[in-house]
Amino acid sequence: MARTIGSHGPTTMEAIRKAGLRLIFQHGYEAMSLRQLAAEVGIQPGSLYNHISTKQELLADLIQDHINDLLRELETALRDKEGAVERLRAFVAFHVSYHMTRKREVFIANSELRSLDPRNYEAVVALRGAYEQRLAEILTDGVAEGVFDVDDVQVATFAIIALLTGLCSWYRPGGRLTKDAIIAAHEKLVLSGVMPRSAKPSPSGRDGIKTE
Amino acid sequence: MARTIGSHGPTTMEAIRKAGLRLIFQHGYEAMSLRQLAAEVGIQPGSLYNHISTKQELLADLIQDHINDLLRELETALRDKEGAVERLRAFVAFHVSYHMTRKREVFIANSELRSLDPRNYEAVVALRGAYEQRLAEILTDGVAEGVFDVDDVQVATFAIIALLTGLCSWYRPGGRLTKDAIIAAHEKLVLSGVMPRSAKPSPSGRDGIKTE
Repeated sequence: MARTIGSHGPTTMEAIRKAGLRLIFQHGYEAMSLRQLAAEVGIQPGSLYNHISTKQELLADLIQDHINDLLRELETALRDKEGAVERLRAFVAFHVSYHMTRKREVFIANSELRSLDPRNYEAVVALRGAYEQRLAEILTDGVAEGVFDVDDVQVATFAIIALLTGLCSWYRPGGRLTKDAIIAAHEKLVLSGVMPRSAKPSPSGRDGIKTE
Repeated sequence: MARTIGSHGPTTMEAIRKAGLRLIFQHGYEAMSLRQLAAEVGIQPGSLYNHISTKQELLADLIQDHINDLLRELETALRDKEGAVERLRAFVAFHVSYHMTRKREVFIANSELRSLDPRNYEAVVALRGAYEQRLAEILTDGVAEGVFDVDDVQVATFAIIALLTGLCSWYRPGGRLTKDAIIAAHEKLVLSGVMPRSAKPSPSGRDGIKTE
């Protein structure tokens, strides 16, 4: 987050971030040299240090900013949504829409955790945990409200996020399905996945739901 | 697959594959040098060429062998399983169990598709497609049998595989849950996700299920 703002600072910084994303996505963090990054941006290698202090800092910023954006925009998506079912629906629609536009950020945030130094790794894992926690709370509330039937909230949280994020590996704009159809298909899978299946007449209802 | 079998050929080859997996998992394919690989195995760099012809060939072999293993073992897991529900349950249990033991292979097969040359990329995508097709067939059969209610079989196929594979990012042996509990939690999420939700008393049963 420590960005030097000089003349054209923010613009150059934005170009560095975009080029960094592209290069790390394509070659991996470790294989990307700062010389290559500078060439991609069109500046001298030495000039990079007016904007970033290290390659590690750039990686950590890219990943942290991505998860901070996720958290902030999720907040907006969940605002005014009431009840676990509506909130889960909103979570799914938000996560899918957001991930349709951030393929590179998502890939790097998942594949380059290995390259973060311990301090940055801890910070990223904590941020990611905060995002996961938002979903875990919705699931926990749904179980308490009697509308969800979930074996294990933590497993379900990880599984649902993986399901929704999987979209990044195949989604291309302009494909066979509309954005809305894709969101609807994901909503149905996730909502059905956590709602009681073909509720038996007798032991159903709030009291009949096992939360184990 | 083209492995030279000399004296100690298979053993050295196995060591090269294991070291390659470790190094690519840790540093990325592009960042791994053959010099580093040879050092990890404990042989001279020049000796590598008795076993692999190129770094590219090693990567392609690692990924293709992984997916071929998946396909072959899935075949065994589905043998004698009848009906879409039983076959989906078997698919889930197999995929989860297998992925509990192949974290590195799975990571590389997903993150290093970018590093495959076009011929190897096509071959891997075809193999992966064959695996996905097995799940798509189960879902399609289930819709035809009237036991599944799926918006879009292709989206559901990708989503279910992503959900199940997500386990690789958090599973550690000896954790809070037993292997069986983890499989059961995944089975429930996936089966519920594709089965008709809280079937209304009247139009339930095979004929009443909408497949859209």
